[in-house]
Amino acid sequence: MKKVKIEIIPIGDEILIGQIIDTNSAWMATKLTREGFEIVAISTVGDRADSIMKALDIAFSRADIVLMTGGVGPTKDDITKTTLCNYFNTRLVFDDTVLENINRIFAHKKHVLNELTRNQALVPENCTVIQNRVGTAPVLWFEQNRKILVSMPGVPFEMKTIMTDEVIPRLKKQFQSIDYLKCSFLVAGITESALATRLADFEAQLPGNFSLAYLPSYGLIRLRLSAWGNENSSEMEIQKEKLKNTVKDIIVDASDKSLETILGEALRSKKLTLSTAESCTGGNIAHRITLIPGASDYFKGSIVSYANQVKSDILGIDSKAIERYGAVSQEVVGQMAQSASKKLKTDCSVAVSGIAGPTGGTPDKPVGTVWICTKTPTEIVTKKYQFGTSREENINRTVNMALLQMIKMLI
Amino acid sequence: MKKVKIEIIPIGDEILIGQIIDTNSAWMATKLTREGFEIVAISTVGDRADSIMKALDIAFSRADIVLMTGGVGPTKDDITKTTLCNYFNTRLVFDDTVLENINRIFAHKKHVLNELTRNQALVPENCTVIQNRVGTAPVLWFEQNRKILVSMPGVPFEMKTIMTDEVIPRLKKQFQSIDYLKCSFLVAGITESALATRLADFEAQLPGNFSLAYLPSYGLIRLRLSAWGNENSSEMEIQKEKLKNTVKDIIVDASDKSLETILGEALRSKKLTLSTAESCTGGNIAHRITLIPGASDYFKGSIVSYANQVKSDILGIDSKAIERYGAVSQEVVGQMAQSASKKLKTDCSVAVSGIAGPTGGTPDKPVGTVWICTKTPTEIVTKKYQFGTSREENINRTVNMALLQMIKMLI
Repeated sequence: MKKVKIEIIPIGDEILIGQIIDTNSAWMATKLTREGFEIVAISTVGDRADSIMKALDIAFSRADIVLMTGGVGPTKDDITKTTLCNYFNTRLVFDDTVLENINRIFAHKKHVLNELTRNQALVPENCTVIQNRVGTAPVLWFEQNRKILVSMPGVPFEMKTIMTDEVIPRLKKQFQSIDYLKCSFLVAGITESALATRLADFEAQLPGNFSLAYLPSYGLIRLRLSAWGNENSSEMEIQKEKLKNTVKDIIVDASDKSLETILGEALRSKKLTLSTAESCTGGNIAHRITLIPGASDYFKGSIVSYANQVKSDILGIDSKAIERYGAVSQEVVGQMAQSASKKLKTDCSVAVSGIAGPTGGTPDKPVGTVWICTKTPTEIVTKKYQFGTSREENINRTVNMALLQMIKMLI
Repeated sequence: MKKVKIEIIPIGDEILIGQIIDTNSAWMATKLTREGFEIVAISTVGDRADSIMKALDIAFSRADIVLMTGGVGPTKDDITKTTLCNYFNTRLVFDDTVLENINRIFAHKKHVLNELTRNQALVPENCTVIQNRVGTAPVLWFEQNRKILVSMPGVPFEMKTIMTDEVIPRLKKQFQSIDYLKCSFLVAGITESALATRLADFEAQLPGNFSLAYLPSYGLIRLRLSAWGNENSSEMEIQKEKLKNTVKDIIVDASDKSLETILGEALRSKKLTLSTAESCTGGNIAHRITLIPGASDYFKGSIVSYANQVKSDILGIDSKAIERYGAVSQEVVGQMAQSASKKLKTDCSVAVSGIAGPTGGTPDKPVGTVWICTKTPTEIVTKKYQFGTSREENINRTVNMALLQMIKMLI
């Protein structure tokens, strides 16, 4: 059995001029790889008929399935649909079910339907039309010479809904994809090069059809061991154990879950509640935690004490402690955690105080200095970290390390 | 004079399995577009000789310049260099200046040079080698049939340094690029299709060499008018004025700035301070505001009252009001805003309360119902919004609309 090959074609001038970062393709690639499909290329082109035609020719020369995103909104710079008609030698016809769907969407949003939106109900005659539950642009599914092309909107949440509910299930039904075997370990507390050195022997003995990838992200590294084909499943078990033993001491989790998911599950299973008191992260820890549906079961709230006065007024931090030790100190972050769980009446709490930069550093406490305190009903851990010089990096690393420090106390 | 066309080829299996998001290409596209080059495609392929060879053939068929990133580190799966030798019919030779550079980098980092890293001094014979000041992999510059290929590392920091210091200056010297003219308007309170209807006459009269793009993002639409060539600059002024007049009533800003930047500048110029009280956004409004360096000048903090008890205990919301009207109500969100600015001692405040979903909706208040209250020293605005059914969308739209509602009161 051979691997089923997919090419993704994101369409849009806004990507080619750098105005938006294409995050859709990585999301799609992750999901599709997990389902056993192989992505052979991601080919971004502009909103021009000739560019799209050429991209389609190239894609069909190397892939079995082509997934196009973008270029299908109601505005006239969206020429994808007419180009697809030319490519597949067909014409646009009016589709009543699409119009019904558009009317339903518009009724819900209380907007008035206009001519341009109504035109979204025009679809190529010889394709399968899949309704878009969450938007007005329909999904177009073409089949020709045993190959498939799907055109879908580029709006991320529309694309994700369509891929999850419609496209992936249909592709799985139609193609017998080869199983993609993988296991994943989330590790922390090690640099990428130190990890590579530690794993040199493991990699040297790894069979040629297995691969090990490193995904570093703000203080964490996800290791992914993978191979194609079920015939490798017993070897995968063996290699997985070897890998696990090699990194045993630094493993956070042996799944593909996010930190906020792992934390949420730990709190839920232990019936514990959580609050945060945040300074340099400005609410991003609470934001990450509340991205998970149902977080209200265990997360109660946060006090973002960006200014020192808020630390004293709301959290009741001793202003003398702030004066004496500074806001970025073991003493203050410890009081912040204590106060958060007391005032927000939670079992556990996370507090952070640091210097995100680019300014505000001193020789004693340079930019990137962060204190994190995590508290459970029976334990308090307060720890100092030294991150980098980039504000964005410092905020993201602080969030990850705070979630991690809390997780470690709960699992 | 014709536009100089560039194709970007990011190389790496890690992009194709979705393990990393390609942010390099957007950065490169922004810089190159600004310098007057046109990006015609971004074509990501895997670490395989045949994929890279095919991508090069395709790229040279439509572009004058090909910029390859990635696939040049010291690890064994990096086959780009030998593939380039095959493509350009040459062989690898040892380059002493590259070795010197590697030794310098390693001395600085206090690492020990190993065989794998030493091999990075092997370079194709008939190319120009550009030293990489900040890493060990050299930059390879090929010229053939008046076309150019540059191969450079994919590590973002190295790529950015090389592009800024070496590649862009050399390309500008060698190619006479055409200026890219553009102007941008951020508009709100209108759907994409209603905007397109309103702009139909404007678009109809727009000269053929001008283009207008719509970039919608969570309740906002950025309009970008662009044209190539300085000879169009006076026409650009005329068109810009026409466009501005057509959307006058819905313009938020006439720049490329983010909402949080616009809000920060407004607060700073008026010497006003801000706090937030957040329910469904879980701290994301505060997070967005504090992404801006120097936000502590005007932003004091936030109370994330995810649980109702936190609304009463910390914000002091009348629990009878919560019982009577519900947490997602005009009364409660109004009290939240009042309390935030009182307790956090700020001039202005933003409060939000809503149902992000996927559960928690009722017939009266379906998922996506959000109340936003914004307060200045002299004015309070409380407004109900009805967003969609996706949690992620509802959170992001609430943040955008809250920032926007506050901005509108300040400018």
